Amino acid sequence: MPTISKKGRDMPSSPIRKLVPYAEQAIEKGRKIYYLNIGQPDIRTPEIALEAVKNNDIEILSYSRSEGSETYRKKLAQYYSKHAIHVTYKDIVVTTGASEALLFLFSSIMDPEDEVIISEPFYANYIAFSKASGVNIIPAVCNIDDNFALPSIETFEKLITPKTKAILICNPGNPTGCLYTEDDIKKLAAIAIKHDLFLVADEVYREFVYDGHKHFSILQAEGIDQHAVVIDSVSKRYSMCGARIGCLVSKNKTVMQTVLKFAQARLSPPTYAQIASEAALDTPQSYFDDVIKEYVERRNTLISELQKIDKLKVALPQGAFYCIVELPVKNTDDFAQWLLEHFEVDNETIMVAPAEGFYSTPGIGVNQIRIAYVLDKESLIKAVHILKEALKVYKD
Amino acid sequence: MPTISKKGRDMPSSPIRKLVPYAEQAIEKGRKIYYLNIGQPDIRTPEIALEAVKNNDIEILSYSRSEGSETYRKKLAQYYSKHAIHVTYKDIVVTTGASEALLFLFSSIMDPEDEVIISEPFYANYIAFSKASGVNIIPAVCNIDDNFALPSIETFEKLITPKTKAILICNPGNPTGCLYTEDDIKKLAAIAIKHDLFLVADEVYREFVYDGHKHFSILQAEGIDQHAVVIDSVSKRYSMCGARIGCLVSKNKTVMQTVLKFAQARLSPPTYAQIASEAALDTPQSYFDDVIKEYVERRNTLISELQKIDKLKVALPQGAFYCIVELPVKNTDDFAQWLLEHFEVDNETIMVAPAEGFYSTPGIGVNQIRIAYVLDKESLIKAVHILKEALKVYKD
Ligand SMILES: Cc1ncc(COP(=O)(O)O)c(C=O)c1O
Ligand SMILES: Cc1ncc(COP(=O)(O)O)c(C=O)c1O
Repeated sequence: MPTISKKGRDMPSSPIRKLVPYAEQAIEKGRKIYYLNIGQPDIRTPEIALEAVKNNDIEILSYSRSEGSETYRKKLAQYYSKHAIHVTYKDIVVTTGASEALLFLFSSIMDPEDEVIISEPFYANYIAFSKASGVNIIPAVCNIDDNFALPSIETFEKLITPKTKAILICNPGNPTGCLYTEDDIKKLAAIAIKHDLFLVADEVYREFVYDGHKHFSILQAEGIDQHAVVIDSVSKRYSMCGARIGCLVSKNKTVMQTVLKFAQARLSPPTYAQIASEAALDTPQSYFDDVIKEYVERRNTLISELQKIDKLKVALPQGAFYCIVELPVKNTDDFAQWLLEHFEVDNETIMVAPAEGFYSTPGIGVNQIRIAYVLDKESLIKAVHILKEALKVYKD
Repeated sequence: MPTISKKGRDMPSSPIRKLVPYAEQAIEKGRKIYYLNIGQPDIRTPEIALEAVKNNDIEILSYSRSEGSETYRKKLAQYYSKHAIHVTYKDIVVTTGASEALLFLFSSIMDPEDEVIISEPFYANYIAFSKASGVNIIPAVCNIDDNFALPSIETFEKLITPKTKAILICNPGNPTGCLYTEDDIKKLAAIAIKHDLFLVADEVYREFVYDGHKHFSILQAEGIDQHAVVIDSVSKRYSMCGARIGCLVSKNKTVMQTVLKFAQARLSPPTYAQIASEAALDTPQSYFDDVIKEYVERRNTLISELQKIDKLKVALPQGAFYCIVELPVKNTDDFAQWLLEHFEVDNETIMVAPAEGFYSTPGIGVNQIRIAYVLDKESLIKAVHILKEALKVYKD
């Protein structure tokens, strides 16, 4: 039998995937599961986006342009302007989700053996995209004890080598919920400029910012035009994960021309989804106000319930809809499996995401989990109650 | 300014792209262009697929499963059975177009510096996918004089080295329109088994087979299960290029597990497009009968008109909707540009695809063009007339 590639063998499996059979068994036993592990919002997609697709008048479902439809890119540029990010449609390439934007970017700016510094813990698929491109991740470790604050300039500078091509941040962060300040961003911009590195920000959670904070995009920092690349997506913003529309934004023309070559090779992003995404740009502000109110209430509920549990640490999220929780257990991989296999309160249990997959530093995060608050408050209360009871009886 | 990757610099630009500004200028001058260069069918998408999307009742546009929705995969397995390709839904991973299937496959079975043998001329983006993966293409050159017939076994065996991981064919072929026989496929299967290589067939034009011929899939060859991978797409079959749905089909479990890891990293294929693609599977046979009748008439018109031109060679296509034409000019890149810049008949001109981009062997194909017959007969007659007049006056 012919063998597969080394790259293919090195690709990580989704850490959740291992738990799926146990979840299925639990369901077969008639058990109800609260899914705290998923990043799929339960919020309704804006009506205006859904209606646009229902009312489309396509007769021949043709390829769009490789860089995305011009009308969509033009409207998207206006959206950015409203967020004080001044770009034109020429600075935007529409992609099949932020996922594809990340893939194009990794390929466009990095060769095998190059290094990218990422503040850790980070979105697990960054590992997959770097393996796919042969790139090495150098983690800049953040700590739950100071709420996953950005590491110091000195920490970053120590990690820079001749192979470093980029610093990648996710802001607000998945899985931390951490929001970087204007000051943080300006510091990072200064490092990028000083060391001639790309500064890449995954800003797919831009809208999800709480407690009166304001999101500061890397594209708002001065002097960073040739270094900054933003990764974006409609998935979370409009609860449109299944559309598969994202984009890559940069004022660096060489980067954009290179990204376009990768975009041309795959012909075009999906047409129906671009219709939905273009219409979604007219979503009224009241939609976001409601959504943010809902997330803040959920977060407050979740955190206050969690804080009632002994020997548990939780970082306070200021954005996105995740938080990292440190548990008094040795290994959350085992614990998560045990919850599904052996534990129940009134025939209900929970599924959590072990945090190990969000770290590339070996050994860190093994006693942490990520909780996504994409469930209603009542369910969150019940879910945390189950966690509390479970910790009382669980033995490592 | 930080530099982009070597890989990014090596990526080819679309060869058509160079011509676009000249086409735009021609249009500005008020000139009508017959586009012979595109692979986007002008055929209507089946009503049943368009309606399914219009009547969808999605409220939250969620991620689908990474391997594609189970109902779609199950129906797709039935479609293959009808075509005497016996697979189950577990042998199918749904992708964002055949493009993504090719990308996943290149990454799953080949590492940088590995080799893939491809019968040449071939779909231009195979070069892009191989550059993106650092893989080297070894062309098995086919000849217009024998209608781009499959090279002999000996030719293939001479090209095999320790680095060879796969043989890739496109059947029926873009850009040749060539259809490989059952015998051809069995020969290729024997080579793949003997040398322990993957045999990959891009069968996106499966339905477009003429003159009473029958398509024989590599998955119908005996003993090939562990070696065969089929790349497929709804783009051409249902004139649904903008959907961005394809798939990868193989009975090799290790390949499928590896492909799935790449699929998980990008989360899921587009949801609306899967609805359209699932519904499209109920397209009545009469739709295909009509489409094929139309393409055969176009092909016959095109070929007979072309054959009236002096010193021109054309290969007779038996499938897909392309043909390669050899012109009495030195360089079709220049000629194609000249047609747009300087030539017109009654204020009309043509845009053709220079064939050089379909070859990796330097120097071959420079006097060839690809014509796609995705225009109605009347337009094809006019377009060939323009070509004929142009050749009378063009000077290299
Ligand atoms: C931080 C981050 N980046 C990128 C993505 C991928 O998003 P998309 O659905 O646009 O591919 C996700 C999805 O969860 C994410 O959390
Ligand atoms: C031979 C071949 N393979 C693959 C593709 C890509 O198709 P898709 O639209 O499914 O990505 C094309 C598109 O023209 C093609 O001609």
